[in-house]
Amino acid sequence: MSLPRIAVDAMGGDEGVRVMISGAALARRRHEQFKFLLVGDQARIERALQAHPNMREASEILHCEDVVGGDEKPTQALRRAKTTSMGLAINAVKRGDAGAAVSAGNTGALMAMSKLALRTMPGIDRPALAALMPTLSDNDVIMLDLGANTECDARNLVQFAIMGAAYARIVTVEGAPRVRLLNIGTEETKGTDRLQDAAQMLREATGPSFSFDGFVEADKINRGDVDVVVTDGFSGNIALKAIEGSARFVTDLLKDAFRSSVRSKIGFLISRPATELLRHHLDPNNHNGAVFLGLNGVVVKSHGSANAAGVANAVAVAARLLEENLTERIAADLAELGEARLRENGTVGAEK
Amino acid sequence: MSLPRIAVDAMGGDEGVRVMISGAALARRRHEQFKFLLVGDQARIERALQAHPNMREASEILHCEDVVGGDEKPTQALRRAKTTSMGLAINAVKRGDAGAAVSAGNTGALMAMSKLALRTMPGIDRPALAALMPTLSDNDVIMLDLGANTECDARNLVQFAIMGAAYARIVTVEGAPRVRLLNIGTEETKGTDRLQDAAQMLREATGPSFSFDGFVEADKINRGDVDVVVTDGFSGNIALKAIEGSARFVTDLLKDAFRSSVRSKIGFLISRPATELLRHHLDPNNHNGAVFLGLNGVVVKSHGSANAAGVANAVAVAARLLEENLTERIAADLAELGEARLRENGTVGAEK
Repeated sequence: MSLPRIAVDAMGGDEGVRVMISGAALARRRHEQFKFLLVGDQARIERALQAHPNMREASEILHCEDVVGGDEKPTQALRRAKTTSMGLAINAVKRGDAGAAVSAGNTGALMAMSKLALRTMPGIDRPALAALMPTLSDNDVIMLDLGANTECDARNLVQFAIMGAAYARIVTVEGAPRVRLLNIGTEETKGTDRLQDAAQMLREATGPSFSFDGFVEADKINRGDVDVVVTDGFSGNIALKAIEGSARFVTDLLKDAFRSSVRSKIGFLISRPATELLRHHLDPNNHNGAVFLGLNGVVVKSHGSANAAGVANAVAVAARLLEENLTERIAADLAELGEARLRENGTVGAEK
Repeated sequence: MSLPRIAVDAMGGDEGVRVMISGAALARRRHEQFKFLLVGDQARIERALQAHPNMREASEILHCEDVVGGDEKPTQALRRAKTTSMGLAINAVKRGDAGAAVSAGNTGALMAMSKLALRTMPGIDRPALAALMPTLSDNDVIMLDLGANTECDARNLVQFAIMGAAYARIVTVEGAPRVRLLNIGTEETKGTDRLQDAAQMLREATGPSFSFDGFVEADKINRGDVDVVVTDGFSGNIALKAIEGSARFVTDLLKDAFRSSVRSKIGFLISRPATELLRHHLDPNNHNGAVFLGLNGVVVKSHGSANAAGVANAVAVAARLLEENLTERIAADLAELGEARLRENGTVGAEK
């Protein structure tokens, strides 16, 4: 069976068509069997393709001129689902004309359009946005939800755990990923009733698809001993941004400190390989590609400011998830857990 | 009128009696007029005081042997409020025998004991835990609540804003502090109904005691353009720990990077003044002293692992808040706002 192709919203993102096409071309070097549907202004896409002949022969162009704005409200964008590059890329997945859509556009609009067009897969009540973050170990940690759902119940959190674990088994770990719930303490009695209930269900659901290791506090997310951090979209968004902002804060302070004297500047130049190593480890382009999990189809969000290497990582995430049949894996895990343990708790399969 | 004295729980904290006493003695050099009630094992306190004769003459010792354990549940600790050093320090404030209590012990127990013994001040429904964090500017930012209240309504958040602003005017800024609500976006429509309602009330309450500047995302907390970040205790705890953890993560990576080659090590040695500057800026001891706001009396929590300089900062915070009459200032702000604008919204003064 041939692999489904990848629809790329060539117009989204701050860096323009050229970066999206270069990124997709870079990804295709690692995943040669993939074909692409490039959605956006035909003339600009063709100009960008001139530098990438191998990409050109693997691509079809779907012309459109309308673009979702970066500040546009999701409700406004939804009305232009049939005319915008983002809307048409998602629609290609809906029609079965592509297996995945990749966009660097407005996250809220992408989420709203994806939910409306693709719907959640059977057994999942709400999709979740998941991203990779660097850790002290070699493996990235996956955190979800990062903002798709401001408020979540225990059942949502359990489903996020199942989806995050399936994602982790494809992109970060072998074997059963270590799953934890984000909380304000690690004692069993900490946090809200929702978290207590979710923890109870996850303890019972621990098995070959994941191992539930209890709660994790926000200062331990990056220590490298957890593979999947599960949380509601509000807390997840707060944690993700706090981590990004704090990392930037420290590196900004460091830059100021290195500029504070001639001696420090010399030290900086000598130790540049070390600071480059740090920069590489923290570069968001190396962890690019947030995924909407739980939809009938794969949707990957690339950072708006990602460079070609960053876009390539986002496209490669889409390719990996298609190669490894993410959606079917989640369905299989849900079925297995649902039949074994969760149905009796009303966690999976019950009417909403 | 002479200043009320400060009760110090000499037994709490990981570093023992000596560090607590040395810290208090250091603080007294900056606040010479203060007297102390030192609560804990008399023999150990007296040994520690031998190095600090000036502190000795300003102190009374209240002997007790019982200590609240670091892992003890608040409900357990509450039963020993009359025998433990923490409980007796708080009780001294309740009796009017001290104006403030400082402890480096178990935060949950300190919170529970303080709430029960001191009660919330008139017009405040719930106390909040507030802490200082470093920013890119010269001023620290104050964030609250950091875990005293897992779930909060709009009215609680408005009260936190008033208390945080009063605290900021004493310790960090002149004039009206810039107050923002922590949210997952800055658009007016973002977040929960609670946040929408709180924002509306705070917009109406903006005046000489604070200026409400809308929402702030977690990656902007440390940029230096906000003085008070207001949030519920769950999100605040997540944000605080994410920031601390991420700062530690980056500095750990930096250490590894500097150790990665001889060349990097040499560069590190040369640029040490720069990295020391960074270390100093991030050292939690320089921002030590979280405060429970909204109680009938001042309670300051020192980090469990703070050194003498850190304890001195926590004690100095207590001294500043007594000198500047924090509790009366909050009461005055509540009264002013309550009469001007908030009473009609049911935010202040209404029955709970």
